[in-house]
Amino acid sequence: MKVNIGVSARHVHLCDEDVEFLFGAGYKLKKMKDLIQKGEYACLEQVAIKTSKNTIDKVRVLGPTRKSTQVEISKTDAFKLGIDPPLRNSGDIKGSSPITLCYNGKELKKDFGCIIAQRHIHMSSRDAFKLGFENEQIVKIKINGEKGGILHNVVIKTNDNFVLELHIDTDDANAHLVKTGDIGEVIIDE
Amino acid sequence: MKVNIGVSARHVHLCDEDVEFLFGAGYKLKKMKDLIQKGEYACLEQVAIKTSKNTIDKVRVLGPTRKSTQVEISKTDAFKLGIDPPLRNSGDIKGSSPITLCYNGKELKKDFGCIIAQRHIHMSSRDAFKLGFENEQIVKIKINGEKGGILHNVVIKTNDNFVLELHIDTDDANAHLVKTGDIGEVIIDE
Repeated sequence: MKVNIGVSARHVHLCDEDVEFLFGAGYKLKKMKDLIQKGEYACLEQVAIKTSKNTIDKVRVLGPTRKSTQVEISKTDAFKLGIDPPLRNSGDIKGSSPITLCYNGKELKKDFGCIIAQRHIHMSSRDAFKLGFENEQIVKIKINGEKGGILHNVVIKTNDNFVLELHIDTDDANAHLVKTGDIGEVIIDE
Repeated sequence: MKVNIGVSARHVHLCDEDVEFLFGAGYKLKKMKDLIQKGEYACLEQVAIKTSKNTIDKVRVLGPTRKSTQVEISKTDAFKLGIDPPLRNSGDIKGSSPITLCYNGKELKKDFGCIIAQRHIHMSSRDAFKLGFENEQIVKIKINGEKGGILHNVVIKTNDNFVLELHIDTDDANAHLVKTGDIGEVIIDE
């Protein structure tokens, strides 16, 4: 089965409280453009992510707001920042790396929330049923090309609103010389 | 078959003429430390690599000098520099990306020489014979771990002096969460 690749650059999800802390009371995130997944969008807002070692500027905020603030970076970013975030599914941030978000002189110190996102496939519940996949099933993805390979430990995420799309981070994309819109092939684990 | 992983960060090989251009007439590169491959070493010298878009500082020079100057970077570096270097075997640099090397105010403009190195395994001719591998044979490498996978298009390079070692770039290493000294498993292509 073929699947479209979506490359996730480093980004930040914010909770309502943290939006207000960084941007001001009553502030609402401004949509820049819709993402492939319905209801998700890139915002005009960008923040810096900061550790005691280094800072990465202009990190895109994604909307809408979530229950908890979450920062998704690559291992390459992690080396630059001098931190060792765990590989996690989105939302599973308990005990993940502390990180500081900065905007216009404000510093938001989070005790946890920075992760490297596990490779995952968004799939509608309908597609999953039709194609015989289950939520949280682990599959592999074959990527063609002169620096191709097979990605292990890719988790299927199903939801009524999901659109079929493989999400990998910039390290996976750059290692395999692929970009958003390229194609991967789902291989089902025995 | 198991093989030790060596992660190659971006680096520069210089020809004698370019050493003299950058560092002065009669200059000899200074060894900082030996690498695993016999006769190869990291030098004290570092240069900047520069394009019209950006500059990356402190890029390590490796010795000894070679016939042609060659710059090996990752795709992540390539995006930063705004260039699109080809995937090549070391030494195969004809028609590769132009790049400028800078040191202490000197600017060395190369019409070609910047590549992304193909994944490769250094193997002694003796080991190759014993294990049934051939020079330039293409194999795959399995990498374990929570962001593991299989690397395709890995070329075997044999030489009397080579020490068994898999060389991958920082994108491959970071994508798979491995580092120098970790282990890969050679899978022979059918």
